[in-house]
Amino acid sequence: MLIVMKKGSTREDLARVAGLVEGMGLTPHVLQGSAQTIVEVTGQTAPLDPGSFESLPGVARAVPAGGAFPLAARQSPAHETRIALGGRTIGGGGVFVMAGPCAVESEEQLLRTAHRVKEAGADALRGGAFKPRSSPYHFQGLGLEGLRILARAREETGLPIVTEAVGEASLELVAEHADVVQIGARNMRNYEMLKRAGRLKKPIFLKRGMSATLEDLLLSAEYVLNEGNDQVLLCERGIRTFSQHSRFTLDLSIVPALREATHLPVFVDPSHATGYRDRVAPMAAAAVAAGADGVMLEVHPAPESSLSDGRQALLPAQLADLVARLRDIAAIARHRTEAVR
Amino acid sequence: MLIVMKKGSTREDLARVAGLVEGMGLTPHVLQGSAQTIVEVTGQTAPLDPGSFESLPGVARAVPAGGAFPLAARQSPAHETRIALGGRTIGGGGVFVMAGPCAVESEEQLLRTAHRVKEAGADALRGGAFKPRSSPYHFQGLGLEGLRILARAREETGLPIVTEAVGEASLELVAEHADVVQIGARNMRNYEMLKRAGRLKKPIFLKRGMSATLEDLLLSAEYVLNEGNDQVLLCERGIRTFSQHSRFTLDLSIVPALREATHLPVFVDPSHATGYRDRVAPMAAAAVAAGADGVMLEVHPAPESSLSDGRQALLPAQLADLVARLRDIAAIARHRTEAVR
Amino acid sequence: MLIVMKKGSTREDLARVAGLVEGMGLTPHVLQGSAQTIVEVTGQTAPLDPGSFESLPGVARAVPAGGAFPLAARQSPAHETRIALGGRTIGGGGVFVMAGPCAVESEEQLLRTAHRVKEAGADALRGGAFKPRSSPYHFQGLGLEGLRILARAREETGLPIVTEAVGEASLELVAEHADVVQIGARNMRNYEMLKRAGRLKKPIFLKRGMSATLEDLLLSAEYVLNEGNDQVLLCERGIRTFSQHSRFTLDLSIVPALREATHLPVFVDPSHATGYRDRVAPMAAAAVAAGADGVMLEVHPAPESSLSDGRQALLPAQLADLVARLRDIAAIARHRTEAVR
Amino acid sequence: MLIVMKKGSTREDLARVAGLVEGMGLTPHVLQGSAQTIVEVTGQTAPLDPGSFESLPGVARAVPAGGAFPLAARQSPAHETRIALGGRTIGGGGVFVMAGPCAVESEEQLLRTAHRVKEAGADALRGGAFKPRSSPYHFQGLGLEGLRILARAREETGLPIVTEAVGEASLELVAEHADVVQIGARNMRNYEMLKRAGRLKKPIFLKRGMSATLEDLLLSAEYVLNEGNDQVLLCERGIRTFSQHSRFTLDLSIVPALREATHLPVFVDPSHATGYRDRVAPMAAAAVAAGADGVMLEVHPAPESSLSDGRQALLPAQLADLVARLRDIAAIARHRTEAVR
Repeated sequence: MLIVMKKGSTREDLARVAGLVEGMGLTPHVLQGSAQTIVEVTGQTAPLDPGSFESLPGVARAVPAGGAFPLAARQSPAHETRIALGGRTIGGGGVFVMAGPCAVESEEQLLRTAHRVKEAGADALRGGAFKPRSSPYHFQGLGLEGLRILARAREETGLPIVTEAVGEASLELVAEHADVVQIGARNMRNYEMLKRAGRLKKPIFLKRGMSATLEDLLLSAEYVLNEGNDQVLLCERGIRTFSQHSRFTLDLSIVPALREATHLPVFVDPSHATGYRDRVAPMAAAAVAAGADGVMLEVHPAPESSLSDGRQALLPAQLADLVARLRDIAAIARHRTEAVR
Repeated sequence: MLIVMKKGSTREDLARVAGLVEGMGLTPHVLQGSAQTIVEVTGQTAPLDPGSFESLPGVARAVPAGGAFPLAARQSPAHETRIALGGRTIGGGGVFVMAGPCAVESEEQLLRTAHRVKEAGADALRGGAFKPRSSPYHFQGLGLEGLRILARAREETGLPIVTEAVGEASLELVAEHADVVQIGARNMRNYEMLKRAGRLKKPIFLKRGMSATLEDLLLSAEYVLNEGNDQVLLCERGIRTFSQHSRFTLDLSIVPALREATHLPVFVDPSHATGYRDRVAPMAAAAVAAGADGVMLEVHPAPESSLSDGRQALLPAQLADLVARLRDIAAIARHRTEAVR
Repeated sequence: MLIVMKKGSTREDLARVAGLVEGMGLTPHVLQGSAQTIVEVTGQTAPLDPGSFESLPGVARAVPAGGAFPLAARQSPAHETRIALGGRTIGGGGVFVMAGPCAVESEEQLLRTAHRVKEAGADALRGGAFKPRSSPYHFQGLGLEGLRILARAREETGLPIVTEAVGEASLELVAEHADVVQIGARNMRNYEMLKRAGRLKKPIFLKRGMSATLEDLLLSAEYVLNEGNDQVLLCERGIRTFSQHSRFTLDLSIVPALREATHLPVFVDPSHATGYRDRVAPMAAAAVAAGADGVMLEVHPAPESSLSDGRQALLPAQLADLVARLRDIAAIARHRTEAVR
Repeated sequence: MLIVMKKGSTREDLARVAGLVEGMGLTPHVLQGSAQTIVEVTGQTAPLDPGSFESLPGVARAVPAGGAFPLAARQSPAHETRIALGGRTIGGGGVFVMAGPCAVESEEQLLRTAHRVKEAGADALRGGAFKPRSSPYHFQGLGLEGLRILARAREETGLPIVTEAVGEASLELVAEHADVVQIGARNMRNYEMLKRAGRLKKPIFLKRGMSATLEDLLLSAEYVLNEGNDQVLLCERGIRTFSQHSRFTLDLSIVPALREATHLPVFVDPSHATGYRDRVAPMAAAAVAAGADGVMLEVHPAPESSLSDGRQALLPAQLADLVARLRDIAAIARHRTEAVR
């Protein structure tokens, strides 16, 4: 931490800062410039809160020196978490495709979709049993019955299952049935839920909140990692901006930024972000070209009868075509490994 | 609901729409314009999901006719929820002031502050026992011990207590000790928590999420109301924008917009939004001038030693001065009742 | 300027930085901490571009020490620009009200409005002769004829005239006829226009661009000041955000932020920001409570026949009522002088 | 235009709307639903301003039926503008690469860069002679001398020249020397400049403003097209959002959205958007994968001595590698033609 003193700050201000630092068991080093004074703090083991210093009189600002998320931070170019799932590996250069319907609507719908997802060459099946909906009057998912249907689809196709938990209560239930537990954008800052997810033994698929910065996202991952679960997958799914041509603004440049900042795998969900089927394929391709380790796609055998978000679901035939193209683009996008050197 | 068909849509498209409407037990009315066709839907009792129609072939868009939040919606200019608290009333023209430290740090700190808050003329005491923090390494609150300290402050001062629950688990605990249960911005979309809050018998102080629209906020309130709890207070606390001169952008024009849209009382928290003590008083005054029913303010007897957000806390002497000024402004701001006519 | 070197930067990196500083005729001072190295630069007379240093190898970041806008910056609590206009003074504690129609539509409309504006107690007449419209197909204003009508209204009422120039070409023409030359949000970053405005002898009313930060706005003011025109009025008029309940998000907390940062008077335009008549009065009151020196309001004698933005125009009777209320609120909002101490 | 009347609107309200429509020489058709009344307007040749109707009593809202930008709008899947430049074609499936330094700094720097750009396989040379800078104290470009240097580079390399005009005055001057005239993000809403650009005989490279919606961008293009210049290139360069990991948020999903909406070619500038060299290549690749017709890239032979934006400039060797990869990705991204079907 570097604590920059204001011009005009007094000796007392400086002494107060030094005292607070020492009171924390740390060491202050005063750097006296010709016009400015800076206190360098050494000795900390966990990240300090800049706010504790910035509220002191005479302090202009406090700049964290070490990172705010030591467990999530990439330590070297080669430092990359790989996660084995369903016989394949997430991370390391390929593209891992999760696909399926927004919501599990019935056994028939889900099994039919699961087979098409398998045939299309995808690596995992997604589908919501619990649906967080903005309105209490909209379809909220089949719940436990949905989880059972998903498990049956895994038996039939061999595809690992990714599905969302919507609160502390559903977390264990989902972990029991699913291979990967999704925490959605709306719960990215539900810290109690994150702590509990950190005590599960399943990979956590953590979606970026619609107003979360890169740092917010990594701090939420840090909550999970800090409890002992080291399998966290990050997912960009669009942020809220003034731009109205798509449902959310897919912030794809967070992909290379995350790859620099963290060793955790990075996914992109272009379906929720764009909200329109025709834009999903271009944005999935763009995500892979930008260096994403995987994508999460919505697909539905009959989107016009979907109970939620039908407009954004790909048709099964489109999925097969897209998966092939994504694997070609991943092969070309060799900057992915270069970017972090 | 009005369903506007695309130019070039077919008879089959129209029949499919009409069929879906009838399948829901509702009545479709086809309005044939000279260039456009519109299906008007009547008979619904709960809000429909426009997405169910917009995914159908041939549909340009679906416009909800009734409101999306029937319980939160204002039905007439005179329709205003008033909530009695600590012998005073929220709503109806005055300004209700909640003040206190960001976090409960110790019994000594809280009691000292509580007495100053009381002397300053505020109406309720706020203070966080559970603190949702972006980083797992920052102070997370005293928990149950904090709740007990708050209860002691109520005994000593007679001020009602407002404090935050941070997840489903802490909700009942907080409701046991507090007079008003706060749900913070980070949990505004934690729908499982909202449903449980709807089954409590205490008023819910619901803060707007940092990327929530007016409709999102009222839909979250609707989750609480729909479970039977009709005491919901709404609070603007700043949104995330590109603008960096304050911590969040206080979106004050949501105050008159909410007053038009809903019968629920509207609060503003200028402390978290601005992040700087010197800007809290101007923005609190602005909130009341814009028509807010109340404000939530941070105050700390010794902000420089605060464990969280000290920079934004008012000094007790500033609070007393501000409370008096806010009451004067509320008296002038008579447009508040006019705005909804 | 403080140039913070990266951990792991080399002696060569440091020498390169020092060399570049000296090459600019400035003095580098190397501050060697126990873990970090910082180069403090002294001797500069004009603000330096941090980018010139941040592109050097080994540099973590460059922090400007002096301000980026020396002419616009407030030097002391008492440092406040006051501008005399039409026998009244902008700045110094009162509230200066500019009111009038969005666009000059006809002599009859403008004169009728001007008299009502005068009767309502406003201090200046606004009205657009040149209208910057997003679509080339919408009404673009009466141009020179509009300026002449405005001049006639000044003769009849004695009110000073505020009107917008829409490009370099119209700037001199507007300056000839108007008392205050407005530069709209869309031209806030039209630097060639700003330079020319700096050579006029009339006050410049500079509106904040819809994506401009506080610093961007003051840098644009700096362009005008730097050419010798020291009469610049700043105006908040709303920014673009995801929030859709109002046309733009009125960022009122920029008012106290600007009062700290600059000696220039600060106005607010609640009409364009909110887009709805019923929200203009609350937000004008809020602006004054937040410490604004003045407001710009739209008023129209028959809004339903207005050629532009009729929905947001106040009726003349509403204006009279509002002006009185604003003066009362300004009298209470004594924090305005406190805020900068 | 569809004008939706409010529930509770009167016969007089309806008659007033019909009268206004007829007064414009257009035909109103009243569609009477069982609960709502809608007025369909036919006969218009240019887009109507919804605001003219929405300010009338009894009107809920006015929905434009035809497009707001008839000249920029795509009329059919096959409708695509192609522009010949330097012996190559923009549009039609390939990727057109414009590259060069942010600013022309000297003849030596520019010529050296131009040769490297040529060798790298790029299609055009970019470089700023006039630089719009936020601060009046930063380097503003070499002006006319810069244009002459650019012309010399064209003679030596055969590459067509793309450079920016910063106001009405520089527009003709730039058009004389350059092959493509750039209008930057800050001037996207400088309508007087756009009108003049519409009377030039050179292609206009129009960058999206940092707070412009898709519609705003196409309306600005419409200003140029409406004056007779049918050669307009659109360019996404990042928008202002809360997200701080990159300088601007590159809104790549506007690429497929624009391809649906317009026949004009779509470019992306990843250099200004990301602000960091290492993120330029991934985002350029993503842009092409998303369907962009071209990219604009910054390259500098010695970025550490650049007078502006050196951090974001690619090295010449990186450019050559990137151009090859972009052409490979373009060949795979065959969804570009599918997207609009």
